Amino acid sequence: MKAKKAQETFALTSKIVLPNDTNVLTNLMGGQLLNWMDITAGISAQRHSRRVVVTASVNNVSFNHPIKLGDVVTIESKVSRAFTSSMEVYLDVYVDLTNGGRKKCNEAIYTFVAVDQNGSPIEVPEIIPETDREKERYASALRRRQLSLILAGKMKPNQATELKALFDEVEKAAN
Amino acid sequence: MKAKKAQETFALTSKIVLPNDTNVLTNLMGGQLLNWMDITAGISAQRHSRRVVVTASVNNVSFNHPIKLGDVVTIESKVSRAFTSSMEVYLDVYVDLTNGGRKKCNEAIYTFVAVDQNGSPIEVPEIIPETDREKERYASALRRRQLSLILAGKMKPNQATELKALFDEVEKAAN
Amino acid sequence: MKAKKAQETFALTSKIVLPNDTNVLTNLMGGQLLNWMDITAGISAQRHSRRVVVTASVNNVSFNHPIKLGDVVTIESKVSRAFTSSMEVYLDVYVDLTNGGRKKCNEAIYTFVAVDQNGSPIEVPEIIPETDREKERYASALRRRQLSLILAGKMKPNQATELKALFDEVEKAAN
Amino acid sequence: MKAKKAQETFALTSKIVLPNDTNVLTNLMGGQLLNWMDITAGISAQRHSRRVVVTASVNNVSFNHPIKLGDVVTIESKVSRAFTSSMEVYLDVYVDLTNGGRKKCNEAIYTFVAVDQNGSPIEVPEIIPETDREKERYASALRRRQLSLILAGKMKPNQATELKALFDEVEKAAN
Amino acid sequence: MKAKKAQETFALTSKIVLPNDTNVLTNLMGGQLLNWMDITAGISAQRHSRRVVVTASVNNVSFNHPIKLGDVVTIESKVSRAFTSSMEVYLDVYVDLTNGGRKKCNEAIYTFVAVDQNGSPIEVPEIIPETDREKERYASALRRRQLSLILAGKMKPNQATELKALFDEVEKAAN
Amino acid sequence: MKAKKAQETFALTSKIVLPNDTNVLTNLMGGQLLNWMDITAGISAQRHSRRVVVTASVNNVSFNHPIKLGDVVTIESKVSRAFTSSMEVYLDVYVDLTNGGRKKCNEAIYTFVAVDQNGSPIEVPEIIPETDREKERYASALRRRQLSLILAGKMKPNQATELKALFDEVEKAAN
Repeated sequence: MKAKKAQETFALTSKIVLPNDTNVLTNLMGGQLLNWMDITAGISAQRHSRRVVVTASVNNVSFNHPIKLGDVVTIESKVSRAFTSSMEVYLDVYVDLTNGGRKKCNEAIYTFVAVDQNGSPIEVPEIIPETDREKERYASALRRRQLSLILAGKMKPNQATELKALFDEVEKAAN
Repeated sequence: MKAKKAQETFALTSKIVLPNDTNVLTNLMGGQLLNWMDITAGISAQRHSRRVVVTASVNNVSFNHPIKLGDVVTIESKVSRAFTSSMEVYLDVYVDLTNGGRKKCNEAIYTFVAVDQNGSPIEVPEIIPETDREKERYASALRRRQLSLILAGKMKPNQATELKALFDEVEKAAN
Repeated sequence: MKAKKAQETFALTSKIVLPNDTNVLTNLMGGQLLNWMDITAGISAQRHSRRVVVTASVNNVSFNHPIKLGDVVTIESKVSRAFTSSMEVYLDVYVDLTNGGRKKCNEAIYTFVAVDQNGSPIEVPEIIPETDREKERYASALRRRQLSLILAGKMKPNQATELKALFDEVEKAAN
Repeated sequence: MKAKKAQETFALTSKIVLPNDTNVLTNLMGGQLLNWMDITAGISAQRHSRRVVVTASVNNVSFNHPIKLGDVVTIESKVSRAFTSSMEVYLDVYVDLTNGGRKKCNEAIYTFVAVDQNGSPIEVPEIIPETDREKERYASALRRRQLSLILAGKMKPNQATELKALFDEVEKAAN
Repeated sequence: MKAKKAQETFALTSKIVLPNDTNVLTNLMGGQLLNWMDITAGISAQRHSRRVVVTASVNNVSFNHPIKLGDVVTIESKVSRAFTSSMEVYLDVYVDLTNGGRKKCNEAIYTFVAVDQNGSPIEVPEIIPETDREKERYASALRRRQLSLILAGKMKPNQATELKALFDEVEKAAN
Repeated sequence: MKAKKAQETFALTSKIVLPNDTNVLTNLMGGQLLNWMDITAGISAQRHSRRVVVTASVNNVSFNHPIKLGDVVTIESKVSRAFTSSMEVYLDVYVDLTNGGRKKCNEAIYTFVAVDQNGSPIEVPEIIPETDREKERYASALRRRQLSLILAGKMKPNQATELKALFDEVEKAAN
């Protein structure tokens, strides 16, 4: 199974925030954005695996910047790393600014599994990261996977050598 | 500001999975469930704070059991713990079984912030856990908050005494 | 076929009124509420019969209290009585108040029929009412059925002994 | 306030039944039809009153004929009678047949109230029925109103002279 | 295959403009109206052919009059002419005025193709225009078809005798 | 007002075709695609003008290739030319192929007008085409505008020098 470049899995969608997507403050509701991101990330996973894909999990997502009614929201996604039948997809969300630029609103990480017609997991190609950002996300995907396995009780903390590195980094950054 | 019992924040919604909620395998799409959970969790947060609430973040959510077209899905939520202006909401998702019982499909954790009319954070009451499950989720909410602060670089790992306990537990469970 | 307690057929859904659910006065439109009640009542009927159910009729429904954009609406339903293959479902609709309580907005009565894969009616269990309210609704269901049969020309008024009681009651109440 | 002909309040809508409007038997769900009828009836009431109108109640509606995915559904409505600020709207629902004709699927009766900008009831013109069907529905509207007032405890049965006539008719029809 | 009168293909739908149909100026969005017109025109084409129909093309549509939130929009359509397996459908769009009349907002022309179960084109009956407007639209449909064939490079301009007439007419009108 | 490059107005959206977007042959309905294209084209026009934009007209659109349930549809758009306050937007629609490529399904041309807060037209910058395709569409936009003005009776055919060139081209291509 031939590995694919991260760039080949790129998916993008732009949307205008309509009234029904907003709460009483006329801000985009988090659940609607989660739904949109799921569709876009699924397209990336489908482009990588050329299979039906199903959402397996969502990592920590933070909503830091309110998005308003009428805003143009752009969601971009790429598969950051593949593990046997699962694919981690990294998303960036932007809003158009009136000066012609755009502002990053948040990031999110979804995991998808490729399945066959019976819904059973099926192997997917590996990812080849090329840009610096792709390489950084490829590397951190392994740490996230280890943390997730530890939290699920499927890996011992002392086996998670990559995760230890993360904690060391965090500690340095925090000092 | 008078603390409230977790039970007072209980919210529930039952839905039938319709065609547009499903993918080509006629399974409920993850993004749609994320959206429904956001609404239900928001009702819990609103019942606790009696304020407008906005989604601040979503913790790790796993989708382990496919949910089918026509299934009755029930989402239950309660505020598990409050921190100044933010509230962690814990959700359980069930599907009706044909024998009259129901099967747990997944859990999820969302965090909301109570805001005033200008969208600025505003203080919320504390939570009083009563049942064993409420107490367990109240306790673990602190560890999740520490992990989240560490990952965001806002706390040093050695300050997170609660989180260390989690890792010790996990390690024991894994041995 | 073993009779079931009314409580076992309980269904509940809470929703937030979104912009598209409202008219130009930003009040929830009656048709949207009728649609939501149909789904919730159908879940009760499905929980009672464990069959596919189809809406057979809707009784008189009154909309007395306007429900506003952003309100949390809670719809509760139980099968009030079963007749061969049909089930009368009684609904209560509430809105969250800002003081933490809730206000009853209206009641409604839907009738469902359980069907097999070909859409033909199929027998359902009887209902065992337990609480006072369940007993009262169980009793009045018979009167409503008689009135409906009379109006459809399928029963003579003098056969409807239960209905006569209703008119007597009403007359007393009105005096 | 000048009375208007029933014909002037005529409203019509044709729709194709889409997947999300159907249940697992791929039949149109009752609640969706109730919602569509509410919109069409509201247009009739708005055309009569030239005011904002709100749904006040729904009379007995029966769903006798299943409507299928892909069917063309036509809903026709007219104000059958006006009472001070309320309007009874009578609806007929049809489905296109493949031979070019159409089949009547059901009837329904909704009541609307005209309101001013504050949501307070406001007077509406009277209705002038012209065709035989319009006259018949105009006459029966009074009996339905009496029955509704009796059931609500606002009128004594012995005052409802029109309703007595209905029962006599029904009794004759049933004999 | 027996020709049919244009009147037999008449379809009509009335809708209320809801919040999600509108842009930030609370005017009906063009794309939503294009979607509604497609459904109504498709019903006309289905009524003419008694077959499944698919949209083949949309002619020039202009949106000259803004339509507001809460407006009652009425879309009327008839097949203007049939060519082998394709049908040109002519639409008129109106908005209710508060004085009881209605204002024409725009016209549009869609073309549909009747297909069999495999999606292959299948012959349809001819159209018999009766009223002056039907005859005028029947005649101009041929010119539109010629222009469309020329623009697609499938007909030479000098073969399009009908189109030449159009240009002559336009030139006269412009002088 | 500084002219902008066509590339700066690029907008893109990818979508998965869901059940409610399809007809009984489970193909994407034309009206739904028209609606999606309107949103994407509107984003291009908004990016060019940095103003609220409203759909003014839709040119001839053909639907040549059926798009299926579950397909990934990608809509790309750019402003092809600006005229005072109006902008012609050119769209290309693609579907993902299972071999990793994509197939062009259709093209469409929409025209938007930039408006101020009162809905009055407001001037927009000119467009600078750079690529061959951009230049070709920029040139043909003028011919389309002339044809549209002639058909609307606002220009005499003999004034439309650009349009004559088109007819000559078409004639040559057809010979």
